[in-house]
Amino acid sequence: MTDKKTIYLDNSATTQVHPEIKDTILPYLEDLYGNPSSIHAKGQEVKKTIDNARKQVADLIGAKETEIIFTGSGTEANNLALKGIASKNKNKGNHIITTRIEHKSILNSARWLETEGFKVTYLNVDENGTVDINQLKEEIRPETILVSVMFANNEMGTIQPIKEIGEFLKGKGIYFHTDAVQAAGKIKINLKELNIDLLTLSGHKIHGPKGIGALYIRKGTEIDPMIHGGGQEKNIRSGTENVPGIVGLGKAAEIANKNLESNIEHLTNLGKKLEKGIFKEIPDLILNGHPDNRIPGNVNISFKYVEGESIMLMLDCEGICVSTGSACTSKSLKPSYVLDAMGKEIVFMHGSIRFSIGTFNTEEEIDTVIKTLPTIIKKLRALSPIYNKD
Amino acid sequence: MTDKKTIYLDNSATTQVHPEIKDTILPYLEDLYGNPSSIHAKGQEVKKTIDNARKQVADLIGAKETEIIFTGSGTEANNLALKGIASKNKNKGNHIITTRIEHKSILNSARWLETEGFKVTYLNVDENGTVDINQLKEEIRPETILVSVMFANNEMGTIQPIKEIGEFLKGKGIYFHTDAVQAAGKIKINLKELNIDLLTLSGHKIHGPKGIGALYIRKGTEIDPMIHGGGQEKNIRSGTENVPGIVGLGKAAEIANKNLESNIEHLTNLGKKLEKGIFKEIPDLILNGHPDNRIPGNVNISFKYVEGESIMLMLDCEGICVSTGSACTSKSLKPSYVLDAMGKEIVFMHGSIRFSIGTFNTEEEIDTVIKTLPTIIKKLRALSPIYNKD
Repeated sequence: MTDKKTIYLDNSATTQVHPEIKDTILPYLEDLYGNPSSIHAKGQEVKKTIDNARKQVADLIGAKETEIIFTGSGTEANNLALKGIASKNKNKGNHIITTRIEHKSILNSARWLETEGFKVTYLNVDENGTVDINQLKEEIRPETILVSVMFANNEMGTIQPIKEIGEFLKGKGIYFHTDAVQAAGKIKINLKELNIDLLTLSGHKIHGPKGIGALYIRKGTEIDPMIHGGGQEKNIRSGTENVPGIVGLGKAAEIANKNLESNIEHLTNLGKKLEKGIFKEIPDLILNGHPDNRIPGNVNISFKYVEGESIMLMLDCEGICVSTGSACTSKSLKPSYVLDAMGKEIVFMHGSIRFSIGTFNTEEEIDTVIKTLPTIIKKLRALSPIYNKD
Repeated sequence: MTDKKTIYLDNSATTQVHPEIKDTILPYLEDLYGNPSSIHAKGQEVKKTIDNARKQVADLIGAKETEIIFTGSGTEANNLALKGIASKNKNKGNHIITTRIEHKSILNSARWLETEGFKVTYLNVDENGTVDINQLKEEIRPETILVSVMFANNEMGTIQPIKEIGEFLKGKGIYFHTDAVQAAGKIKINLKELNIDLLTLSGHKIHGPKGIGALYIRKGTEIDPMIHGGGQEKNIRSGTENVPGIVGLGKAAEIANKNLESNIEHLTNLGKKLEKGIFKEIPDLILNGHPDNRIPGNVNISFKYVEGESIMLMLDCEGICVSTGSACTSKSLKPSYVLDAMGKEIVFMHGSIRFSIGTFNTEEEIDTVIKTLPTIIKKLRALSPIYNKD
């Protein structure tokens, strides 16, 4: 479904909007323009749709529709989770635990909370990017109010022990938040079987539109709003509802839910094919992240002796879109803090490429990448002053 | 352009998306789905469009494109203006001045800032809803860091003395913010002639999409972010950009700018026609807000002896959409705090209706309203226990 010239393998950065979702959004850019807060018919016809979208999102993760709050992005939902819980529960304690490999929206919210007097522990991860659950257990203090651990990492795809963390935290009076932006639609998430209080989703990572996110807030969770105003979204997130975005996210969740198993199979097959193909054709590389316990379709590889940026730009010339890290940090051209946390050697940290496969990618596209990449790596290594040419 | 059955006179709550704007958005729900933070071609083609939208928004208000930050709503932009300025400048002072008739997003942000140790003065307004500029002058203190006064009121349309306030504040080292959500596209706003540091806009009030707002931040203004993360929007508002919303707001601003004079004329004519027609046909009513100095197309009338809610619901049965107050507060069914601030008698406060005319309304629609309303008011007054039937 991508246009002919481009092979888009950057689905962890953003995804193509599913054509069905576009069709769902369209009427809300046409006749269904009412403000859901308006009591007249034009407003109320839209209000029902929002409630329906809330149900669609809830169904994807095994939640109740009353537990879903819409936000302007996954980033906003992550900010709301951390700051909203911290603000509301500051009388109970001032300690928060998260990890060194979270998305910037978690890390920078945590750093901001530190300037507000909160203490934050950043957990280490092992060489596969798995969080150290023993360290988590040791770091719990009487004043710990919140643990935030991502469901799966955005750079190298490692899935975290969310079920175990939830079970450990049960009954301790500590809120548990997980950023599931990268996991949703690629892993089965059933909140009925997981002890999670808050969970973040984003529309544009699951073939929905940009500009819409959601925060699951388990019933009974004490949280302060971050954006004040007219009291929309149960007074937790004010502002006229982004109706086109909300119906788009709802539909995206519905499709992701319906196609979950086939999508997982599709992403797993293409991911394995890409990984095997690259490892067969190219020497001196390592797979970053957990070898098995990772989100399907994420293939993060470090190519020794070459710069990730150079590979990415040369692939771009061939119409192949990939990323060196996450899109949110790719501009900085610094080595990935995620790979750094995993203890990677510097020679590998600079040469990492994230291939992230999406619903609309095809086997032929993967074949093209496997065919194109070796020449590029060879060329770059020939230019590299540190490459051992013997 | 509204559908045949509905006469939509609630354009201050939200507006129909302009068909041209819908067409502008569409490609960004199709092939142009890249993440503007991505360095590859698929990201960069989108990045250019965002810069273009920034220019379109800047042009509407006489700003530079580098001074525009996109947000998820006007509400978020208002929150960012107040909290961002307060946070960044708290070492300079802790006093903020605003008015009693601001939108809830300003009032509730101000109240939240009070819980954080800031002192807030809420200025009074006169019987026409005009802010008391002498009171403003008296309330300025050495520790005043911010003045926030809306450009035009959302309920009764009164335009505030923004130019005079800006001139008074010049050189005083006090930031001046104005919420121009209701004014944009209906009044000429030229920041080259106004001393304004921050200005809020919203997409869906100017025939753009919902879920997108903007904050003009004058170059050199010291402001903290409210949403932390990947550093988008010059690190002032993180989160993957709402590309469809941004291009939609850009186009809406371009159209509003191009059609400003004709739109003002259109709204003024229809507004005057509606006002005259109602006053001719119905006794015992008053016009709320300034008789002349108000945004064109806003006709806010209090009908003595009847409940605004009842009028609104009966008009709704006839397919005519209006509002009792602002959409954001209409659900509370409390008398308007704006009318309260204006010192209206209680007998008038309960019977207020806001007719807000938009670009797509026609003379025929106004005729229908003028024909329909008297019967409704007569019926309701016949039921009213306080109506003097003599």
